Amino acid sequence: MMHLPQVSRWVDSVDNQLIQYFSQKDPLTHPLDRAMEYSLLAGGKRLRPVLTLAVVDCLGGNTDSAIPLALASELLHTYSLIHDDLPSMDNDDLRRGKPTNHIVFGEALAILAGDALQSEAFRLLIDEPCPDLDLATRLAILSDFAHAVGRNGMVGGQVMDLQQAGKQFDIERLRQLHGRKTGALIHFCVRLGARLGRANAREMAALDTYGHALGLLFQVTDDILDLEAESSVLGKTAGKDQDQDKATFPKLLGLEGAKAFADETLSLGQDALTSLERDCKLLSDIAEYVRNRGH
Amino acid sequence: MMHLPQVSRWVDSVDNQLIQYFSQKDPLTHPLDRAMEYSLLAGGKRLRPVLTLAVVDCLGGNTDSAIPLALASELLHTYSLIHDDLPSMDNDDLRRGKPTNHIVFGEALAILAGDALQSEAFRLLIDEPCPDLDLATRLAILSDFAHAVGRNGMVGGQVMDLQQAGKQFDIERLRQLHGRKTGALIHFCVRLGARLGRANAREMAALDTYGHALGLLFQVTDDILDLEAESSVLGKTAGKDQDQDKATFPKLLGLEGAKAFADETLSLGQDALTSLERDCKLLSDIAEYVRNRGH
Repeated sequence: MMHLPQVSRWVDSVDNQLIQYFSQKDPLTHPLDRAMEYSLLAGGKRLRPVLTLAVVDCLGGNTDSAIPLALASELLHTYSLIHDDLPSMDNDDLRRGKPTNHIVFGEALAILAGDALQSEAFRLLIDEPCPDLDLATRLAILSDFAHAVGRNGMVGGQVMDLQQAGKQFDIERLRQLHGRKTGALIHFCVRLGARLGRANAREMAALDTYGHALGLLFQVTDDILDLEAESSVLGKTAGKDQDQDKATFPKLLGLEGAKAFADETLSLGQDALTSLERDCKLLSDIAEYVRNRGH
Repeated sequence: MMHLPQVSRWVDSVDNQLIQYFSQKDPLTHPLDRAMEYSLLAGGKRLRPVLTLAVVDCLGGNTDSAIPLALASELLHTYSLIHDDLPSMDNDDLRRGKPTNHIVFGEALAILAGDALQSEAFRLLIDEPCPDLDLATRLAILSDFAHAVGRNGMVGGQVMDLQQAGKQFDIERLRQLHGRKTGALIHFCVRLGARLGRANAREMAALDTYGHALGLLFQVTDDILDLEAESSVLGKTAGKDQDQDKATFPKLLGLEGAKAFADETLSLGQDALTSLERDCKLLSDIAEYVRNRGH
């Protein structure tokens, strides 16, 4: 994801754990495992688990023991991509430059692979050992996760997105949409790191602000990238949102306005980090990376 | 479901809680809530939550405080029906005599309603208050649930079912398929009741045997019903499994053989109840009901 040795090591660890996870396929459900594995190992940047690990690191916690739980967001994210790409949703044939899950495995198996990835994401947070993690904190993590991914979180945001047609979207409504669709899971990743790193209340509040800003920044820059980039660079069909006449930040604010909004959002996140009074260089770099990626 | 006053009261309580659950729809995601509600309130028999409550009752526990957690299996079951009915899966237009979710709300919203119901099922088990439930037991319940519903449970069973074509299925393979596809969640409902009713190790083992037998019995009798019943009685397209040349218990054992197998499975469950040395009349009646329903 970023050319930092620390991040590269974490990405490698995450990738290794994911490969390990599917090393013993269940002979009875082999095609399901292959479909789950295909999308999980299709070249994701691992931003979400890395974000969790960077927060743990910033708070002086143990990143190694955080990895199994940090993977949950990657499984959840992958399920959401598989379902978003389906013919009845965005109908995308390409993702990260590769055929989408339903193109390779068929629609039925793609739906089921997504379903199983959601269950497995919960299972990791429920079951995976994590030294010194008390039961109450584990349940608090699970509660954060359940709220971030369901009806009031990611799925709710996806429904808002699908139902946009013919509706007037102002900037506040667009923020709510993406706060759920993309932001809630990114915010969760930061909170997970905060809980695993034993943040106190003041630190949690600052990291909440950072996580919220980062989720928003992610979508604003995605909209900007989508407008500017070519298919070959993004690995997905560029300009698609524009074609479908969906509200985007550049459409509501203009391209320059959207860039200014991204910069303000970045500043908000950076200010929150400053207030932490810890060495947050990596978290700051991640926010910079999200702002400037793809250029 | 059954004409017993106790069960009717529980069914009413479950229905009321489900109605309550959607009484305040989120204005931003109203269509999602309506799609979830539609299938949840489409006339299910509530077998799964009732089963949990009957186990709690048998063990002398508090059924009222068990209801919020008992609902989780109904949400999960409903999500599985919505996804199973999709065009790329079983392609069913009718369920319980009503148009299926994707017929009413479209395919995209049906997929998302299922996705959100899975998240919400976990959320209920994570978040809903339950007096005297300690954190370790709650996490054990969540672990049971995650295993019952995902890759090695329900979704895995659905994949085995979809991939049957051209494969030789013996009775053992068919048991594995249905043990996952249907049995795992029914077994979970019994275990949930056992944990909420503070079963000791001996009682848990007996209830595991009962839950396992009940899950199997459910599928064997479903196969028998599907062969015998008319569309009008079942409220779904009868004889469908036969048409699609899928393995069923009657196909492998003959109709009389399948009935004998159902009776043996029923006895196995009843014997386990006897060994409990408690008043298990209701659990016994539920098993009888599953064996004889629809005739």
